Amino acid sequence: MTSKRIRTIEELGEFGLIDRLTAGFSIHQESTKVGVGDDAAVIDHGSYYQVVTTDLLLEGIHFDLVYTPLRHLGYKAVVVNLSDVYAMNAAPRQITVSVGISGKFSVEALDKFYEGVKLACDRFKVDLVGGDTSASVTGLLITVTAIGTALKEELTLRSSAQNHNLVCVTGDLGAAYMGLKILEREKQLHTADPEFQPELKGYDYVLERFLKPEPRVDVLLALKEAGVTPSAMIDISDGLSSELLHICKSSDCGVQVYEERIPVADETAKAAGEFQLEPLVAALHGGEDYELLFTVPLSDFEKVSAISGVSIIGNITDQKGKAFLVGNDGSAIPLQAQGWNAYTDSE
Amino acid sequence: MTSKRIRTIEELGEFGLIDRLTAGFSIHQESTKVGVGDDAAVIDHGSYYQVVTTDLLLEGIHFDLVYTPLRHLGYKAVVVNLSDVYAMNAAPRQITVSVGISGKFSVEALDKFYEGVKLACDRFKVDLVGGDTSASVTGLLITVTAIGTALKEELTLRSSAQNHNLVCVTGDLGAAYMGLKILEREKQLHTADPEFQPELKGYDYVLERFLKPEPRVDVLLALKEAGVTPSAMIDISDGLSSELLHICKSSDCGVQVYEERIPVADETAKAAGEFQLEPLVAALHGGEDYELLFTVPLSDFEKVSAISGVSIIGNITDQKGKAFLVGNDGSAIPLQAQGWNAYTDSE
Repeated sequence: MTSKRIRTIEELGEFGLIDRLTAGFSIHQESTKVGVGDDAAVIDHGSYYQVVTTDLLLEGIHFDLVYTPLRHLGYKAVVVNLSDVYAMNAAPRQITVSVGISGKFSVEALDKFYEGVKLACDRFKVDLVGGDTSASVTGLLITVTAIGTALKEELTLRSSAQNHNLVCVTGDLGAAYMGLKILEREKQLHTADPEFQPELKGYDYVLERFLKPEPRVDVLLALKEAGVTPSAMIDISDGLSSELLHICKSSDCGVQVYEERIPVADETAKAAGEFQLEPLVAALHGGEDYELLFTVPLSDFEKVSAISGVSIIGNITDQKGKAFLVGNDGSAIPLQAQGWNAYTDSE
Repeated sequence: MTSKRIRTIEELGEFGLIDRLTAGFSIHQESTKVGVGDDAAVIDHGSYYQVVTTDLLLEGIHFDLVYTPLRHLGYKAVVVNLSDVYAMNAAPRQITVSVGISGKFSVEALDKFYEGVKLACDRFKVDLVGGDTSASVTGLLITVTAIGTALKEELTLRSSAQNHNLVCVTGDLGAAYMGLKILEREKQLHTADPEFQPELKGYDYVLERFLKPEPRVDVLLALKEAGVTPSAMIDISDGLSSELLHICKSSDCGVQVYEERIPVADETAKAAGEFQLEPLVAALHGGEDYELLFTVPLSDFEKVSAISGVSIIGNITDQKGKAFLVGNDGSAIPLQAQGWNAYTDSE
């Protein structure tokens, strides 16, 4: 048989699917500067840019209400979108929030969700300007669109990393993934024995990282104060490996990062140990950290080094599309995207 | 018992629920001109306004894939959002489209959906600039956000109807609802007897109105050419009664419309007859027509009368919050919102 085999959604993966579905679309509007393919779309308003990003969050796929308080979910649903706006080096301004709700939800449950939305709106000074509500056949579904603005000279795409640039990340990685693993473990124990009381003491850090992520506005402000504009930036939602590969693809470059430089919190390493998991694996492939991954020119080395909460983990290379992890023994291992994939992940 | 009874989502209804959930939110951004409560939010960009609107479309609630071709669904999902942009007297510029898809969908099925999205994008010159894709637990869910721009002097809210203004609608009403009724009838006959062949001949008009609605850009252009800017405008998605009451509430006014003036197509009346339904009921309470309902000053009577595809159906009154239908016998019947309500509708 030589006929072209039809590819399945699983084979294509999320990014392959998006590439395929949006391939034939043309641009009609002068104001459209960047369409599909960055953290956010970019609209030109003459003296400044506007960025627009949107996310779907579905019960049973992206969250489990057994261990996710609705207030936290409301906060997180907003924050993960703001994180995409910040990753463009833009300031969020407005959001819309739409919810589909099945019969099992009370008005009070929705009140709790919107308390979390409001907390995020007040903290990050964004306005809830619209949305839609509907009944749903099963469970809760949430979709948030966030809009922000950026000065033209400050907008930071994924596509502008340059050879020899330093590769930096904020905070530490893998914590949110270990928070999820702990919650899943306790849920399973509780399901097996309803008398079992979940034991979450001592896991505060990783649980908070999963349930209530915070966008790294602090680091963006510090960079601005230091006079540093990243050459490229992306937020880490699917895991470091996946995001490094996005930058390589968009910027048509390569990257190498050093195992010993990848920041992992002690609590994350301890939790990983309980699952016989290498902390590095959680850092590379665990998602939902919502830290920032960015590149800066070598000349900014000292300025960036002085900012607390930033780790320089490697550098951009000219080996197009290739991302390597340099191990502590000097070996170079090719990185692959094994981030959370809602199409194939069995967890 | 004197304690406050907790209200259910069904009792609140969609608009009551939105009012409740968004009540405590404050506005932080100077650029936010209109938040929740019109066809679209309005963002101030100095020399012009930008409008933003979003809709959820859920399988089993808003559409039935048994009789909705995916290509039509893609087109309609975009168009219903563009209709909200046009209802602000704005021009659509960009959209984002997010889809959640269960395992039953093939890549080819999604291709068809995006063909419809592309057709709408090309026809109305809007750019697909982003979105999200995800697995879903059940069925297909779609969420579209549309962005447009309006000249400041042309933006048309729901809230600016004035006493004695003429009330106008475009096209004819109730057709989409009858199209849905026909499709539901044929589906039920087919379910009862799989040998049964659906008979859709002779229903082309009402079926097309339901499956492939078209926003009334033509009338907006004609109004512009005639030098008429509506004082208030809304698109008819939930039924004429419901939209009239929205204008009354937002503009703090009343309205009366005349039975004999409400435009109903012959095909709609004929289909209604088959269901022993008054055509007027379909026109008042059937949804998804996506025609425009707008008000103009009395002084524009002649200009508006000369535009084909516009019917003057009544006038704004000072009886705040009261909407009346004046029957052919001279009786005045209070109108109530009985539009499609995804929370309570059993159909």
